[in-house]
Amino acid sequence: MSRSILLIEDQPYDAELTLRALRELGLDEDVMHLRDGAEALRYLFQDASDHGTPPKLILLDLKLPKVSGLEVLEALKSDERTHCIPVIALTSSQEQQDLTRCYDLGVNSYVVKPVDFEQFTETVQRIGRYWTSTNQTVC
Amino acid sequence: MSRSILLIEDQPYDAELTLRALRELGLDEDVMHLRDGAEALRYLFQDASDHGTPPKLILLDLKLPKVSGLEVLEALKSDERTHCIPVIALTSSQEQQDLTRCYDLGVNSYVVKPVDFEQFTETVQRIGRYWTSTNQTVC
Repeated sequence: MSRSILLIEDQPYDAELTLRALRELGLDEDVMHLRDGAEALRYLFQDASDHGTPPKLILLDLKLPKVSGLEVLEALKSDERTHCIPVIALTSSQEQQDLTRCYDLGVNSYVVKPVDFEQFTETVQRIGRYWTSTNQTVC
Repeated sequence: MSRSILLIEDQPYDAELTLRALRELGLDEDVMHLRDGAEALRYLFQDASDHGTPPKLILLDLKLPKVSGLEVLEALKSDERTHCIPVIALTSSQEQQDLTRCYDLGVNSYVVKPVDFEQFTETVQRIGRYWTSTNQTVC
Protein backbone atom coordinates (compact mmCIF):
# COMPACT_ATOMS: atom_id res chain seq x y z
CA MET A 1 0.00 0.00 0.00
CA SER A 2 1.27 3.45 -0.86
CA ARG A 3 1.84 5.98 1.90
CA SER A 4 1.89 9.72 1.20
CA ILE A 5 4.37 10.74 3.88
CA LEU A 6 7.59 8.97 4.69
CA LEU A 7 9.09 9.85 8.07
CA ILE A 8 12.72 8.78 8.47
CA GLU A 9 13.56 9.36 12.14
CA ASP A 10 15.45 7.24 14.65
CA GLN A 11 14.69 9.20 17.83
CA PRO A 12 11.54 7.70 19.42
CA TYR A 13 10.50 10.94 21.14
CA ASP A 14 10.84 13.08 18.01
CA ALA A 15 9.06 10.43 15.93
CA GLU A 16 6.18 10.23 18.41
CA LEU A 17 5.78 14.02 18.49
CA THR A 18 5.85 14.19 14.69
CA LEU A 19 3.32 11.38 14.27
CA ARG A 20 1.04 12.94 16.89
CA ALA A 21 1.19 16.34 15.16
CA LEU A 22 0.34 14.74 11.80
CA ARG A 23 -2.46 12.73 13.45
CA GLU A 24 -4.06 15.97 14.60
CA LEU A 25 -4.18 17.02 10.93
CA GLY A 26 -5.79 13.73 9.97
CA LEU A 27 -2.66 12.64 8.09
CA ASP A 28 -1.41 9.82 10.32
CA GLU A 29 -2.87 6.94 8.30
CA ASP A 30 -0.80 8.15 5.39
CA VAL A 31 2.52 8.01 7.24
CA MET A 32 5.19 5.32 6.93
CA HIS A 33 7.77 5.58 9.69
CA LEU A 34 11.26 4.17 9.11
CA ARG A 35 14.05 4.30 11.68
CA ASP A 36 17.35 4.28 9.80
CA GLY A 37 18.89 5.26 6.50
CA ALA A 38 19.45 1.71 5.24
CA GLU A 39 15.78 0.83 5.81
CA ALA A 40 14.81 4.03 3.96
CA LEU A 41 16.94 3.21 0.92
CA ARG A 42 15.53 -0.32 0.83
CA TYR A 43 11.95 1.01 1.03
CA LEU A 44 12.51 3.64 -1.66
CA PHE A 45 14.54 1.60 -4.13
CA GLN A 46 14.57 -2.17 -3.64
CA ASP A 47 11.00 -2.59 -2.41
CA ALA A 48 9.52 0.39 -4.31
CA SER A 49 7.40 -1.77 -6.59
CA ASP A 50 5.64 -3.35 -3.58
CA HIS A 51 4.04 -0.12 -2.42
CA GLY A 52 2.76 1.68 -5.50
CA THR A 53 3.25 5.38 -6.03
CA PRO A 54 6.16 7.11 -4.29
CA PRO A 55 5.49 9.25 -1.21
CA LYS A 56 4.35 12.85 -1.75
CA LEU A 57 6.70 14.00 0.98
CA ILE A 58 9.75 12.75 2.86
CA LEU A 59 10.61 14.09 6.31
CA LEU A 60 14.27 13.25 6.78
CA ASP A 61 16.32 13.43 9.95
CA LEU A 62 20.03 13.87 9.23
CA LYS A 63 21.65 11.95 12.09
CA LEU A 64 20.50 8.42 11.32
CA PRO A 65 22.00 5.00 12.09
CA LYS A 66 23.59 2.83 9.37
CA VAL A 67 23.23 5.31 6.47
CA SER A 68 23.15 9.04 7.23
CA GLY A 69 20.38 11.39 6.20
CA LEU A 70 22.78 13.19 3.86
CA GLU A 71 23.55 9.91 2.07
CA VAL A 72 19.82 9.15 1.76
CA LEU A 73 19.24 12.65 0.37
CA GLU A 74 22.06 12.24 -2.14
CA ALA A 75 20.68 8.89 -3.30
CA LEU A 76 17.17 10.31 -3.68
CA LYS A 77 18.17 13.43 -5.56
CA SER A 78 20.59 11.71 -7.93
CA ASP A 79 18.14 9.05 -9.10
CA GLU A 80 15.60 9.97 -11.76
CA ARG A 81 12.96 7.70 -10.17
CA THR A 82 12.99 9.69 -6.95
CA HIS A 83 14.55 13.11 -7.53
CA CYS A 84 11.21 14.86 -7.82
CA ILE A 85 9.92 13.70 -4.41
CA PRO A 86 9.98 16.68 -2.03
CA VAL A 87 12.49 16.04 0.75
CA ILE A 88 12.35 18.17 3.89
CA ALA A 89 15.33 17.92 6.22
CA LEU A 90 13.81 17.99 9.72
CA THR A 91 16.75 18.11 12.04
CA SER A 92 18.13 19.49 15.28
CA SER A 93 21.31 20.53 13.42
CA GLN A 94 21.79 24.24 12.92
CA GLU A 95 25.30 23.70 11.59
CA GLN A 96 26.04 25.77 8.54
CA GLN A 97 27.79 22.84 6.85
CA ASP A 98 24.70 20.62 7.14
CA LEU A 99 22.50 23.38 5.76
CA THR A 100 24.88 24.07 2.87
CA ARG A 101 25.37 20.40 2.08
CA CYS A 102 21.62 19.75 2.05
CA TYR A 103 20.98 22.61 -0.39
CA ASP A 104 23.94 21.47 -2.52
CA LEU A 105 22.37 18.01 -2.73
CA GLY A 106 18.99 19.46 -3.73
CA VAL A 107 16.93 19.34 -0.54
CA ASN A 108 13.56 21.04 -1.08
CA SER A 109 13.41 22.59 2.37
CA TYR A 110 15.43 22.60 5.60
CA VAL A 111 13.63 22.92 8.91
CA VAL A 112 15.24 23.02 12.35
CA LYS A 113 13.28 21.12 15.02
CA PRO A 114 12.11 23.52 17.70
CA VAL A 115 13.01 22.42 21.24
CA ASP A 116 9.68 23.60 22.64
CA PHE A 117 6.93 20.97 22.43
CA GLU A 118 4.19 23.30 21.16
CA GLN A 119 6.46 24.93 18.59
CA PHE A 120 7.57 21.49 17.41
CA THR A 121 3.94 20.46 16.89
CA GLU A 122 3.09 23.69 15.10
CA THR A 123 6.14 23.40 12.85
CA VAL A 124 5.35 19.80 11.85
CA GLN A 125 1.76 20.79 11.13
CA ARG A 126 2.87 23.73 9.01
CA ILE A 127 5.12 21.35 7.04
CA GLY A 128 2.30 18.81 6.71
CA ARG A 129 -0.26 21.33 5.50
CA TYR A 130 2.12 23.02 3.07
CA TRP A 131 3.55 19.92 1.43
CA THR A 132 0.40 17.79 1.24
CA SER A 133 -2.05 20.45 0.09
CA THR A 134 -0.31 23.62 -1.15
CA ASN A 135 2.58 22.03 -3.02
CA GLN A 136 2.03 19.99 -6.20
CA THR A 137 4.13 16.92 -6.85
CA VAL A 138 4.81 15.05 -10.04
CA CYS A 139 6.04 11.57 -9.07
CA MET B 1 19.14 47.44 -0.30
CA SER B 2 18.50 43.74 0.14
CA ARG B 3 14.96 42.40 -0.17
CA SER B 4 13.95 39.07 1.34
CA ILE B 5 11.32 38.10 -1.21
CA LEU B 6 11.64 38.42 -4.95
CA LEU B 7 8.37 38.26 -6.87
CA ILE B 8 8.79 37.69 -10.60
CA GLU B 9 5.33 38.16 -12.11
CA ASP B 10 4.19 39.98 -15.25
CA GLN B 11 0.40 39.85 -14.69
CA PRO B 12 -0.63 43.05 -12.85
CA TYR B 13 -3.69 41.49 -11.20
CA ASP B 14 -1.78 38.44 -9.89
CA ALA B 15 1.09 40.65 -8.72
CA GLU B 16 -1.29 42.97 -6.87
CA LEU B 17 -3.06 40.06 -5.16
CA THR B 18 0.27 38.52 -4.16
CA LEU B 19 1.65 41.80 -2.80
CA ARG B 20 -1.57 42.46 -0.90
CA ALA B 21 -1.50 38.98 0.67
CA LEU B 22 2.13 39.45 1.74
CA ARG B 23 1.29 42.93 3.07
CA GLU B 24 -1.30 41.40 5.37
CA LEU B 25 1.49 39.25 6.84
CA GLY B 26 3.67 42.33 7.32
CA LEU B 27 6.09 41.14 4.64
CA ASP B 28 5.46 43.70 1.89
CA GLU B 29 8.39 45.99 2.70
CA ASP B 30 10.65 43.03 2.05
CA VAL B 31 9.35 42.37 -1.46
CA MET B 32 11.05 43.30 -4.72
CA HIS B 33 8.68 42.94 -7.67
CA LEU B 34 10.13 42.35 -11.14
CA ARG B 35 8.02 41.93 -14.27
CA ASP B 36 9.99 39.82 -16.73
CA GLY B 37 12.64 37.14 -16.88
CA ALA B 38 15.38 39.34 -18.32
CA GLU B 39 14.93 41.88 -15.52
CA ALA B 40 15.09 39.02 -13.00
CA LEU B 41 18.36 37.65 -14.40
CA ARG B 42 19.87 41.15 -14.40
CA TYR B 43 18.81 41.71 -10.78
CA LEU B 44 20.10 38.32 -9.61
CA PHE B 45 23.38 38.19 -11.50
CA GLN B 46 24.61 41.46 -13.05
CA ASP B 47 23.38 43.82 -10.33
CA ALA B 48 23.64 41.35 -7.43
CA SER B 49 26.46 43.23 -5.71
CA ASP B 50 24.29 46.39 -5.52
CA HIS B 51 21.69 44.86 -3.23
CA GLY B 52 23.56 42.85 -0.61
CA THR B 53 22.46 39.39 0.45
CA PRO B 54 20.38 37.33 -1.97
CA PRO B 55 16.62 36.98 -1.40
CA LYS B 56 15.39 34.33 1.06
CA LEU B 57 12.67 33.33 -1.34
CA ILE B 58 11.80 33.70 -5.02
CA LEU B 59 8.20 33.48 -6.22
CA LEU B 60 8.46 32.71 -9.91
CA ASP B 61 5.72 32.82 -12.51
CA LEU B 62 6.50 30.56 -15.48
CA LYS B 63 4.93 32.45 -18.39
CA LEU B 64 7.07 35.58 -18.45
CA PRO B 65 8.02 38.00 -21.23
CA LYS B 66 11.54 38.08 -22.71
CA VAL B 67 13.02 35.17 -20.72
CA SER B 68 10.67 32.42 -19.50
CA GLY B 69 10.34 31.34 -15.89
CA LEU B 70 11.84 27.95 -16.76
CA GLU B 71 14.93 29.65 -18.15
CA VAL B 72 15.23 31.81 -15.04
CA LEU B 73 14.88 28.70 -12.88
CA GLU B 74 17.54 26.88 -14.87
CA ALA B 75 19.94 29.82 -14.55
CA LEU B 76 19.35 30.07 -10.79
CA LYS B 77 19.74 26.38 -10.05
CA SER B 78 22.82 25.85 -12.21
CA ASP B 79 24.85 28.70 -10.69
CA GLU B 80 26.60 28.11 -7.38
CA ARG B 81 25.93 31.71 -6.27
CA THR B 82 22.18 31.22 -6.42
CA HIS B 83 21.33 27.51 -6.43
CA CYS B 84 20.52 27.44 -2.71
CA ILE B 85 17.88 30.20 -2.88
CA PRO B 86 14.45 28.60 -2.49
CA VAL B 87 12.46 29.03 -5.71
CA ILE B 88 8.71 28.47 -5.64
CA ALA B 89 7.00 28.21 -9.01
CA LEU B 90 3.71 30.10 -8.56
CA THR B 91 1.84 29.55 -11.77
CA SER B 92 -1.54 28.97 -13.35
CA SER B 93 -0.09 26.05 -15.31
CA GLN B 94 -1.22 22.61 -14.28
CA GLU B 95 0.48 21.02 -17.27
CA GLN B 96 2.38 17.89 -16.35
CA GLN B 97 5.33 18.91 -18.52
CA ASP B 98 5.78 22.20 -16.64
CA LEU B 99 5.60 20.40 -13.32
CA THR B 100 8.08 17.74 -14.42
CA ARG B 101 10.46 20.24 -15.99
CA CYS B 102 10.44 22.42 -12.85
CA TYR B 103 11.32 19.48 -10.61
CA ASP B 104 13.97 18.33 -13.10
CA LEU B 105 15.55 21.79 -12.89
CA GLY B 106 15.52 21.72 -9.08
CA VAL B 107 12.54 23.89 -8.13
CA ASN B 108 11.98 23.78 -4.36
CA SER B 109 8.20 23.82 -4.59
CA TYR B 110 5.50 24.10 -7.24
CA VAL B 111 2.24 25.83 -6.39
CA VAL B 112 -0.75 26.28 -8.71
CA LYS B 113 -2.45 29.69 -8.35
CA PRO B 114 -6.01 29.20 -7.14
CA VAL B 115 -8.60 30.98 -9.29
CA ASP B 116 -10.67 31.99 -6.26
CA PHE B 117 -9.55 35.29 -4.70
CA GLU B 118 -9.69 34.12 -1.08
CA GLN B 119 -7.93 30.85 -1.82
CA PHE B 120 -5.25 32.76 -3.76
CA THR B 121 -4.64 35.01 -0.75
CA GLU B 122 -4.54 32.08 1.67
CA THR B 123 -2.14 30.16 -0.57
CA VAL B 124 0.28 33.10 -0.91
CA GLN B 125 0.18 33.62 2.85
CA ARG B 126 0.86 29.95 3.49
CA ILE B 127 3.87 30.19 1.14
CA GLY B 128 5.05 33.40 2.82
CA ARG B 129 4.80 32.01 6.34
CA TYR B 130 6.42 28.70 5.48
CA TRP B 131 9.38 30.03 3.51
CA THR B 132 10.21 33.09 5.60
CA SER B 133 9.85 31.58 9.05
CA THR B 134 9.72 27.76 8.99
CA ASN B 135 12.34 27.11 6.32
CA GLN B 136 16.04 27.87 6.92
CA THR B 137 18.15 29.23 4.10
CA VAL B 138 21.87 29.32 3.65
CA CYS B 139 22.64 31.96 1.03
